[in-house]
Amino acid sequence: MSVIPGSHADLLERPLFCHLATLRADGTPHVNPMWFLWDGDCLSFTTSTRRAKYRELVDRPDAAVSINDPEAPYRYLEVRGRVERIEPDTTGEFFDVLAKRYGLATDGPVGDAPQRVRIFLRPTHTTSQ
Amino acid sequence: MSVIPGSHADLLERPLFCHLATLRADGTPHVNPMWFLWDGDCLSFTTSTRRAKYRELVDRPDAAVSINDPEAPYRYLEVRGRVERIEPDTTGEFFDVLAKRYGLATDGPVGDAPQRVRIFLRPTHTTSQ
Repeated sequence: MSVIPGSHADLLERPLFCHLATLRADGTPHVNPMWFLWDGDCLSFTTSTRRAKYRELVDRPDAAVSINDPEAPYRYLEVRGRVERIEPDTTGEFFDVLAKRYGLATDGPVGDAPQRVRIFLRPTHTTSQ
Repeated sequence: MSVIPGSHADLLERPLFCHLATLRADGTPHVNPMWFLWDGDCLSFTTSTRRAKYRELVDRPDAAVSINDPEAPYRYLEVRGRVERIEPDTTGEFFDVLAKRYGLATDGPVGDAPQRVRIFLRPTHTTSQ
């Protein structure tokens, strides 16, 4: 059973930006917009092993995302969860899946493909309005 | 000197929703969309003393906000900072300032005005793209 409320599942299905909050090494929050994919089980993100986000999620796997509806901005979904696994994406294949989902044209593998990873976040709780 | 980059100051001046990340009692992140006002010095938010957000910011004053440009969603500003002070807003006056900024019609003080507070967050760092 997914914890995602059916009333707000469209916010995960549409190619909206989420705002991903993670924990920095000093325990303070870090939040920025991210692409994501929802497979009905986990949210997944592309990042690179050179980014702060990657190090933060390896060291402190608790995270939360906020997504609001651009057509009805008071309507939102917060998903809290934990990183379940991180897979290499050294061909950039998952990056391309997201690029296509978000309407970005690609021409060959993303430049930093050798460092690319796919991060899987399993939802544990949600809040919504 | 403000830490806000001039190139992205419009994201604080326009009535956009920010996604405010705070720390829950167990140290995990909490993030959701919020109204805000930027006075050139601090970001401020309206909440109620009955909300989790209030308790979180009283207990752990480190917070971060993410705002992206709806017309150019890869353009974003993250502001990290600390709660500097919290003022009562028991008349709902500050709530009304924000309601007007965000185009919401009000008819008398907000229902929970007696519990309303204005939270001032002083920026310390930013990231942007």
